[in-house]
Amino acid sequence: MAIEALRALQTRLAEFAAARDWQQFHSPKNLAMALAVEAAELVEEFQWLTEEQSRQLDAARAERVRLELADVFIYLLRIADTLKVDLLCAADDKIALNERKYPAERVRGDARKYTDYD
Amino acid sequence: MAIEALRALQTRLAEFAAARDWQQFHSPKNLAMALAVEAAELVEEFQWLTEEQSRQLDAARAERVRLELADVFIYLLRIADTLKVDLLCAADDKIALNERKYPAERVRGDARKYTDYD
Amino acid sequence: MAIEALRALQTRLAEFAAARDWQQFHSPKNLAMALAVEAAELVEEFQWLTEEQSRQLDAARAERVRLELADVFIYLLRIADTLKVDLLCAADDKIALNERKYPAERVRGDARKYTDYD
Amino acid sequence: MAIEALRALQTRLAEFAAARDWQQFHSPKNLAMALAVEAAELVEEFQWLTEEQSRQLDAARAERVRLELADVFIYLLRIADTLKVDLLCAADDKIALNERKYPAERVRGDARKYTDYD
Repeated sequence: MAIEALRALQTRLAEFAAARDWQQFHSPKNLAMALAVEAAELVEEFQWLTEEQSRQLDAARAERVRLELADVFIYLLRIADTLKVDLLCAADDKIALNERKYPAERVRGDARKYTDYD
Repeated sequence: MAIEALRALQTRLAEFAAARDWQQFHSPKNLAMALAVEAAELVEEFQWLTEEQSRQLDAARAERVRLELADVFIYLLRIADTLKVDLLCAADDKIALNERKYPAERVRGDARKYTDYD
Repeated sequence: MAIEALRALQTRLAEFAAARDWQQFHSPKNLAMALAVEAAELVEEFQWLTEEQSRQLDAARAERVRLELADVFIYLLRIADTLKVDLLCAADDKIALNERKYPAERVRGDARKYTDYD
Repeated sequence: MAIEALRALQTRLAEFAAARDWQQFHSPKNLAMALAVEAAELVEEFQWLTEEQSRQLDAARAERVRLELADVFIYLLRIADTLKVDLLCAADDKIALNERKYPAERVRGDARKYTDYD
């Protein structure tokens, strides 16, 4: 089901780009840059907040954050579409990998990278 | 429908974090940093490629890129869950905003930021 | 004086690239991507630390952070060299701009972006 | 010599922060986020340009890029100051490491990461 909803969004984004003749700019390389720029705009909203403040956003910042999350999502869908990646399937695969890399009983309460474990 | 599939994925990720007592680390501030780090790992795959090469990835790089996209998606879902943002709704709202900011007939073939137009 | 020391470092980096025939990859676009990737590797060292912990790094992390700062510096020097930008002069100009945008008496103790002031 | 010029710039930046009571915000964690945000603003200038165009910037973009490089430099100096890192020394050490990791005769014309070599 989600595949249909995400596909519908990807189709809408592809048509948005096509109507503006922007596919020429939408190489995976360029879309990856755009994705990273949007991720940084999200970071910018949080950079001078404490962690506690970041959990209690005021309405104006919450709305800006919501739209930054949308921007990240939009470029993520765009690049996945361009590269024919199924995001839900990829997420499933990655979570399965993470479950093997970070066994719950081993890493409980410890945020070190798995490579830091010997 | 997608709401259910995305929600299911978010629930699985929340349980993954809870089983490891990692919610303490998952403030929106920290999750935004992690998202930006994953976006940069995606950029790293493309930084020395030409745009053309980025459209024709070999199998090994394509698989690494697929898993980096998964990482971005995972942190995006996690932060949206933490902040109670509906990503599909936010994307709809943002696309509607973009349609007003970048009318097709005005920006065709031109990738300048809308703020560069007078 | 610093101009000479920074220039010497830039010359060494240019020779490093030339000896490997890497200038072909060192377009400003690609170097900007590499700079952002290194900045993200720095962020990664801090993402799960509290602010307080980030002020008190253990020796192993402090050394990793030192080398990540070096990586950022190296790409910054490389891109400035490629674009013929004098970094010290640019920093002087930017600080002067910031002094006008953020008058001390107005923004004391307040980290909001200047655009948030009315 | 450069040490003095860079130190002078770092002192000026520390005074700028102190006059605004901003040291409270300038933890290494937050400064790393700010550095990454500035690096992304640099990337944004290049994201829709071809590599060739990025080598031939028009005057307006060249000036914006110059000031973005200054922003990256400013936060790099600030974080190095906060963590007592000597950037010139760190760069020397990192270049020496890179010379061992990427022997010229081995990697000529090849931008793969050294970890990709067997």
